[in-house]
Order: sequence, then structure tokens, then C-alpha cells
Amino acid sequence: MPLQYNEFYNESTGLTVGVKKLLFSEQTPYQLVEVYETDTWGNLMTIDGMVMLSEKDEFVYHEMLAHTGMFAHPNPEKVLIIGGGDGGTAREVLRHPSVKHVDMVEIDEAVVRASKLYLKDVGAWEDPRLTVLFEDGIAFVKQAKAEYDVVIIDGSDPVGPAEGLFEKGFFELCFSALKEGGVLTAQTESPWVPEYHSSMKKVFGALTEVFTESSMYLAYIPLYPAGMWSFAYASKGIKALDADVLARVENGLPALGTNLNYYNKDVHSGSFALPNFVAEIIR
Amino acid sequence: MPLQYNEFYNESTGLTVGVKKLLFSEQTPYQLVEVYETDTWGNLMTIDGMVMLSEKDEFVYHEMLAHTGMFAHPNPEKVLIIGGGDGGTAREVLRHPSVKHVDMVEIDEAVVRASKLYLKDVGAWEDPRLTVLFEDGIAFVKQAKAEYDVVIIDGSDPVGPAEGLFEKGFFELCFSALKEGGVLTAQTESPWVPEYHSSMKKVFGALTEVFTESSMYLAYIPLYPAGMWSFAYASKGIKALDADVLARVENGLPALGTNLNYYNKDVHSGSFALPNFVAEIIR
Repeated sequence: MPLQYNEFYNESTGLTVGVKKLLFSEQTPYQLVEVYETDTWGNLMTIDGMVMLSEKDEFVYHEMLAHTGMFAHPNPEKVLIIGGGDGGTAREVLRHPSVKHVDMVEIDEAVVRASKLYLKDVGAWEDPRLTVLFEDGIAFVKQAKAEYDVVIIDGSDPVGPAEGLFEKGFFELCFSALKEGGVLTAQTESPWVPEYHSSMKKVFGALTEVFTESSMYLAYIPLYPAGMWSFAYASKGIKALDADVLARVENGLPALGTNLNYYNKDVHSGSFALPNFVAEIIR
Repeated sequence: MPLQYNEFYNESTGLTVGVKKLLFSEQTPYQLVEVYETDTWGNLMTIDGMVMLSEKDEFVYHEMLAHTGMFAHPNPEKVLIIGGGDGGTAREVLRHPSVKHVDMVEIDEAVVRASKLYLKDVGAWEDPRLTVLFEDGIAFVKQAKAEYDVVIIDGSDPVGPAEGLFEKGFFELCFSALKEGGVLTAQTESPWVPEYHSSMKKVFGALTEVFTESSMYLAYIPLYPAGMWSFAYASKGIKALDADVLARVENGLPALGTNLNYYNKDVHSGSFALPNFVAEIIR
């Protein structure tokens, strides 16, 4: 019988991915980190039995989480990533020539270790502008004051160690960690999973209270529940769809030095169009 | 052990839906039509082992297939639906007050019979403006000349009876069946399923040759492969994102007499934003 990775959401709806073998499995102090070699998606990392990324589809999540905020800022030099231990978000951030320094704060060193071993092309670990810190993201952000141009929340689901990343108090700390004109993006779960609706509503309610601008955007991620994933955009004053932002996307994309697979100017705009049932969740 | 419906795509990637029982199963002259009662998606219809719709997610597909074309046309009075035997596309079309007559041409009467029995809220079968014909759609469209304002292709996948609905010759017939200023929409498979890429490329190549305007748009459909589905828009002269079209969406939505769950003006525009890897498939 062929090996399969199975993940269920929504009580009885699931994803099956054919698997060749288990490459890595470690119960860390925080979570169960596993990497599988799959039949068609390259290597696949899961945390506590939930897909984090595969080599074949990670471009969607990382491009959309990173570039939406990076292009919104006119000159992002210093960037903070909370979580993001697979390295993909930092890789996309580091494509921006304006970037001088990235702090990536990952609570679980095993995620980085597994990624360096089995998701070799995902991270850009050798870039001298990247500092990786194995610390609690919330504690770290507490001591940062008006220090960053962009903060990116790349945590796992709002159960376990990432739970605090969905709280208003945390977004207040992020606000303080950002300079004037700073921008934040965050992953905020699938609108098709009812059990996360209350977290989503709480996050967007908090962002509206804490930041001057906030909105949700979406991307198609095939190995995430129902293939639809939501993200938060928030900033100190920059609207995500400002003409200036769209001009920066258009003019700035060639300077990234690579052809992206998902993100472009139309996708930047289009991703903020929310189907009625999604808008309803956070109303 | 709980009952499950399983569907695989992409060699070894699959969807699992928990099932209470099989309600309908019939091998017709054309295909295997089945309806399941599921745990969380209401009743679910499959054809030849591929999900067509569930009661809980069908609004996405039907709203996006119907309204994108219906609002593009300034005054859609006569509409042809090829396929669409579950009745959902006709239901959405019939919401438009301008509509005087809808011909729905479904090759397989068993699909309509099963839908009337087990997908009771999907169709609007009692509407006197609707004529249901159990005929071959390609033969039907051959004898229609400059007769319709909107033609909607709501067929199954390009294997089996729906194969001809992906051919250039068929789109030439549709072009002839449309009046001046006519609009066509069609379902065109998931960009995440490599085996359909050649069909998609062929369809959009043909539409570009046959119509003056053509483009692809996308929607999030949780029970379709990878949760991402593509559609074709084509017309005799009306661009999908014309300011006139967007004004019609905004002004026309209240007259539909119901609150839609997915489609709105922003979604209309945003759905035409194609991620780079999708645009590449049909380049």
C-alpha cells in the first residue's frame, strides 16, 4: 500500500499527499516537526500534523507574505520576521535591494535545522544581511522600539506556540517596533475553517484598533485547508492599494533579480478583493 | 471506520470528504453520476469520480460562472447554458431581471433527475423562463444563429462527454450563436493539475482567435483540485474590466434580489489577476 500523509480540517475534510518516506521527525520542546519526501510536491514540512510548506508550492505563501508588505514600504531597510523558520520569507525579503538587515526570530531551532537539511533551496541562509535568532518572538518584539520598516508574522496556527501571535497585545508591540510609515504583514488562516473564524475576527479587529490602515488579502495555496489562505496587511499610514504602492510594484519587480512565480502588480491588487463570505467573517 | 469519498488528482494528491451515505448512483449512457450525503458539505454530486458540487460550496462556482458574463452584457435577455445539469448556473442567471429566456442543454437527464432529488435548493426549476433540453450541446449550438446574448459552458472535465466543449470548432459555433455584443463564459479546469494544461492552452488560444476579447479568471473552490479553478471570459467587443461593466456590477447587484455569498465588484476585477505561473500556462 502506498504511503500517504493525511491532514484533516473542518471535522471530516482532508488532504492526502502521496509520500515516499519520512525524512525528519522530532518532538521539540514546542511541537512535532516532520519532513516527508513526497511523490509530487518535493519535500514537505509539517508541524503538529499541519502542512507548513512543500518545495513545489511554497512560492505562493512566501511571495505573498513578503512582497505585499515590502513593496508597500517606500524604502524597507530593516525587517523583522517572527517565525519563518523554513527561511522562505527571509529569502523573498532579501531579494529587495533596499534591505540592509533582516532579523528572523524563530522560537524553535529544529525548524531551521530541518529546513537546512531537507528544504535546501527554500532559505537564503548565507546572505550576510540575515541574522537568525532562536528566541521567543513576543519577548523579542517587546524590546524593539521604532526599529523596523517592515514586520512580518510568519507563525504557525493559533494553537500551541504561535497562539500569542494572534493577540491584540502582540500587535501593539509590533506597532511600537515599527518606525514611522512602517508596514506589517501576517498569515491569518483559511477562511474555510470555521474553528479559526474567531481568531481571524480578533486579529482584524485588533489591527483596526492598533494601526491606521489594515486589510485582509488572499492567496491560493494548494496544500493548505481548502486551498484558500488569508493574510493581514497593516501599516502606519500607507494604504495597500495606493497608486504609489502599485507603481513601486511595477517598477521594483525587475530589481528583485528573479522572476517570481505568483506575485505581480495585478495579483497585489486582486488579492485584496474579498468574496462576500470572507468579508463577513471579519466584519 | 468512517465512510469517505476520495478523489485524487496530480498522481498522488487527493481530497477526502467524510460521508454519511451514498444517496444516488447511476451509470448512465454517458457517465457515472453519484450523490453522497456528507458530514460537513451537505449533499455532494460527483461524475466519474470527480466532484461537481456540494451544497455548501456550489455558490462559488455558480456565482462566478454566471455573474461575470451576465454583468458584462448591458442587457442579457436570452441565455444559453451548455451542461449545467445541477441547475445552479441557471438559478444565478435567472436572478437577473433582464432575462426573458434561458435554454439549458444538458446531455444527461440523470444529472437533472439526481439534482432535483438530492440537491433540491440548487436549481430554480420552477422558473417559467427556463427551458431544459436533454440534447447534445454541440449539436444544439450548431443550429443557433445570432440568437443569444450570453452563452455559458458549464460542462465537466475534458474527458468523456464534455471533451468537445474544449475544441476550437465548438467555440466558433458559440460565436455564431451569439448576437452582436454577445458574451461567453466557460469553466476551464484547475491550473494546479498539469494534465489539463494542454486543454487550457488550447481553449484560450482558440478563444483569442475566435473572439475579439478573451481572458482567464479564477475562483477559490474548496472541493475542486487544489482549491483553485479557472474560467474563460470571451466576448464580441466587451472587455471584462470596462468601467461600464464595473458600474453595471455595482448598480445591478441589488436588483438580483438576494445577497450573493462570493461575487461582488472587487471580486469581479480581482478574479482576472493571474498569478505568474497561471498566466504562463496559457501564454
